Parts: sequence; structure tokens; C-alpha cells
Amino acid sequence: MNPELHIIGTGSATPARERHPSAQVLKIGSSKILIDCGEGTQLQLLKLGIRHTGLDFICISHLHGDHYFGLIGLLSTMSLMGRTQSITLIGPPELKEILELQIKVGNMHLNYEIIHLKTDGIHAQDILTTDEFKISCFPLKHRIHCTGFRIEETPSQRHLNIDAVKLYDIPINHYKAIKAGADYLSPSGERIDNAILTSDPAPSRAFAYCSDTIFDPSIVPFIEGVDILYHESTYTKDLIDRANLYFHSTAEQAATIAQLAGVGLLIIGHFSSRYDSDSLQLLLDEARTQFPNTELAIEGRVFLV
Amino acid sequence: MNPELHIIGTGSATPARERHPSAQVLKIGSSKILIDCGEGTQLQLLKLGIRHTGLDFICISHLHGDHYFGLIGLLSTMSLMGRTQSITLIGPPELKEILELQIKVGNMHLNYEIIHLKTDGIHAQDILTTDEFKISCFPLKHRIHCTGFRIEETPSQRHLNIDAVKLYDIPINHYKAIKAGADYLSPSGERIDNAILTSDPAPSRAFAYCSDTIFDPSIVPFIEGVDILYHESTYTKDLIDRANLYFHSTAEQAATIAQLAGVGLLIIGHFSSRYDSDSLQLLLDEARTQFPNTELAIEGRVFLV
Repeated sequence: MNPELHIIGTGSATPARERHPSAQVLKIGSSKILIDCGEGTQLQLLKLGIRHTGLDFICISHLHGDHYFGLIGLLSTMSLMGRTQSITLIGPPELKEILELQIKVGNMHLNYEIIHLKTDGIHAQDILTTDEFKISCFPLKHRIHCTGFRIEETPSQRHLNIDAVKLYDIPINHYKAIKAGADYLSPSGERIDNAILTSDPAPSRAFAYCSDTIFDPSIVPFIEGVDILYHESTYTKDLIDRANLYFHSTAEQAATIAQLAGVGLLIIGHFSSRYDSDSLQLLLDEARTQFPNTELAIEGRVFLV
Repeated sequence: MNPELHIIGTGSATPARERHPSAQVLKIGSSKILIDCGEGTQLQLLKLGIRHTGLDFICISHLHGDHYFGLIGLLSTMSLMGRTQSITLIGPPELKEILELQIKVGNMHLNYEIIHLKTDGIHAQDILTTDEFKISCFPLKHRIHCTGFRIEETPSQRHLNIDAVKLYDIPINHYKAIKAGADYLSPSGERIDNAILTSDPAPSRAFAYCSDTIFDPSIVPFIEGVDILYHESTYTKDLIDRANLYFHSTAEQAATIAQLAGVGLLIIGHFSSRYDSDSLQLLLDEARTQFPNTELAIEGRVFLV
């Protein structure tokens, strides 16, 4: 099953009546990965029917409030609701200090462990690999240390060609190696090429998340060829000076990055509160001129990766 | 004009789909006082059309997340939106450390001053007096230090009886003393009783806020005779054991406190998420059996104090 990307919140720092600050959930394999957690995320999850079960990974891009002020509330609620399963939290080093202080002063006790994998916002890191996916971090250029994430499925094993395997009378204990790509050497010394015994697996799907960042083509190698790229698009291009000043991007710039990286689909979000629901079309049109396969991050939308 | 109490959020620690965590705004004189600030309060204010103008005072009862996790987001937004006017924050000492840490790691800069008046959750304090109102704190019994608030209008001056003042030919420079209650001594030595020269002003209105607390009649002297008492009512009385365990109150207990204190109106809130919108009536009925003049804190409701 393809991963699914759920848009939870898509506003920027100044609240807009109809938008919540940044949050997305990637459902991948048996897991859910929450990426950024602005204020109100836990209520949005409740409203959108996304349960905490399987929500075992949380990535925080940086410590501007619209990307993490909802984290302590969500973690606290998870404990109140009986969670005992540990959570892996990928984010800046200072996150731990903030959470610990709030837990201490509230005399709270979390009934589960938080495994904190620290990002530094400077170096690219392969930060986590599970049986189902890999998460890599790369630096974005923002006003404070900020991290982009690339999440891709662990490559599937090759599909065994059952007819061929039977034809060559291959013992079961060799299947594992063959699915991993090995040729088969028979007792009589005959080599059967792996290409005869297997076929290609479904390609691994990949998603990348870039928020918040000034226009920066140096990130292209990290996001190259992903099926979906989420890239912030705070402003339309007439406000490029403002974008540069605050280290944000315009819709056109996001589309340029998508084009340079040869991604499948671009999703733009983190819209300035100056754009109401109707005027988001301006951002979409601007991006599509440069990169036609672009969609808006609208809360509640689900994209198949 | 009577003070107005606006209900912003009325849930308890576990989020409910249709409720936000604790927050209320008291409009009194030319000011707005925000009392508690659960996650999402800033979005609720936006939705309910309550502007930040005049929102110069914030009271935080205690450091359980459902009462303050929305504070840093609101303060940050106020700065982004250009606020320069200082804010007086009344709450536990540790609030300052939490806010300063989050401001530091986010490299944020607030464009206004926060004046922090510390509550200790142990002693009663007259913590703030302005020309328009007085805020007093008193200890509640909860799992961590928790403070109740009594807010009352500064008594108005007595109304000058213009006819009487003219009749006795009283010079204008004596008006101030007379409005403050003084008799008038004429140059000829005649004493004119203040009761002849003035009439009673409109009575000062008073509001008290009690969240979260176990049933505790020792608070009665602090809330005696207020026009509106807000008292938490997390459970119905069949769950009294749970209420005691978690240092919360039942609807019946809240009503008993209202009765003992001889208040005008009781408002109950901080409802457990086990009660959906329909079953809040159970809590209301239970309270009204004991104290008929009770209302539910429903988000968006406004009460005249």
C-alpha cells in the first residue's frame, strides 16, 4: 500500500481564521509519522479522525512556535490516554529541555519513553532506519537552525518467480538470499541468474518535507526524484523581498526547486495569513506556471505518495 | 457598564472533539483579563471575534497543560501583530522560566514587556489594583499549586446630588472629597451631612474563578457574595471517588460551594471528555438541584456580571 500524506495544518506564524499551523501525518507501512506539530494539532487529529495508534515517530523541523507549540499537549494527552509504547522524537537538541521543564513544573509523568534523536540543522544525517522506512535530515536555510526531512520506504525484496524456482528445484532455505538478489549455484555447479528467478519489486516511494526555508537550490541533491515534495510557499512572487527578509519562499521559488529536483508532485503550504481561502489560488497558479503538477496543502486533504 | 464574562474554552485535560481547554475573558472597564489559556486559545479568540486590544492582563491558575499550553503561542502572536503595550501576567513563578526558554530557543523577540506578578498557590494575596478593578488570589487544593482569582470593580465614587450642592453653595474644589464620602463644613461652621449631598453609587460587581480544585469549603470567605462564581465541575456525583482521586469537584459540590458563598450565579465548566454536548445536561441538573441559579460554561457564551 502506498504511503499516505495527511495535511493537518498549513498556516504560517500569524494565525489565520481558517488555518492551523504546520502539521502533517505520513502513514507509511504500519506507522504514522507526525511532521511538525503546531498549536492545536491534537485537536486537528481528533477532528480529522487520525488516531494515536501507530503514531510512533514525530519529526520537528525547527523551534519556531508554529512548528512545535502543540507538541507538549499532544505528548501529555497520549500519556493521559494510556499510551505505554515509546515515541521516537526527531528534532533540535533543545526540545528535550523544553519538554522536561514543562513536565517537571506540571508534576506530570509520561507513561512512555521518549527516544530523542537530535538534529543539528547543519549536517545531512541518515537519522533513522526501520524495517519499513528510512528518515534522512538535511539543513534548510532559515532564521534559526531548521531541518528538512526525506522519508522513503525501505526497498522491498525482489519477487520470487515461483515457476522458475520450482523448475530448478531450489531448496526453500535459499529463497531469502535469492529475494535479496543472489544468483543460485546448484549442487552440480550450475549458476542460475537471479534475473530468471525473480522480478523487480514495486519501487520504493519517497516523500520530502521542506519548511521553512529561503530559496536554496543546494537542497536539490537531498530531495531529488521524490514522489511528493512538500515545500513551503509563504508568499506570492510580488513579495519576494519579504520572503528574502524572513527566510521564506515564494510559490514560484518552490516550483523551481520541484523542477530542479525532478519530483513527481509538489505540494505547497505554510501560507501567509494575508491570503484567505480564495486567494490561495494565486499561489497555486504561480507555482503551476513553473511546475504544473502542483497542489495546495489544504487541511484534511490526503495525498497518495 | 457591567463586566462581561466570555467563555473561550471549557474542556478538561483530555481533549474533547467539541471543546477547547480552559480559557475565559473578563471584559471589565476598559480592559480585558484573560483567565487561563489552554492550547488553541488564540485561535478561539480569533474565531469568537475577541481582539487583543485591551487584553493587558493574563491570569494563569496553575501549570497543568490544559490551563496554559496556549500562552506562549498567544504572546508570540501578539508580538508578531505589532503589540508594544506591556502585559501583566499573574501566575506561578515557573511560568517566566518556561516562556524565557521558548523565546530563547526560537530566537524570538517580544516587542513588549511582560510584567510577571507571581502567585504561590499557598497564601491569599491582593495581587493587583488598578483604577478599575482589583485582583485577589487565594489557594485552591489541587495536585499542584493552584490559584483561584477574585476580580472586582473598584468601588465607584458616590453620586453628587447637584441640587443639594447648589443649594448649599458648595465650591467645586470640595466635590472630590464629597464624592469620596466626606461631609461638608461651610465657612460659617455648618456641617452638611454627606448623605444629603450624595447618593449611593452602583454596587461594585465581582467575579470569582475556581479551577481546578477538590471540594474545599475553606475557599468560601474568598468568594463570598460574588455576582458570578465560576467553579470547575469535572464530574457528576456518581464519580465522586474519581473527583477526590484527581482533586476535582462534582457538579453537586460546585453547587454546594456556590450556596455556602451566597453567590449570584454559578457557572460550571472544565467538563470531563466523557460528557458529550448532550450529557452536559446531567451536570447542570445535578448542580441546579442544589443551587438553582446555575449555568453551563459553553464556548462562545457571554454572561453579564
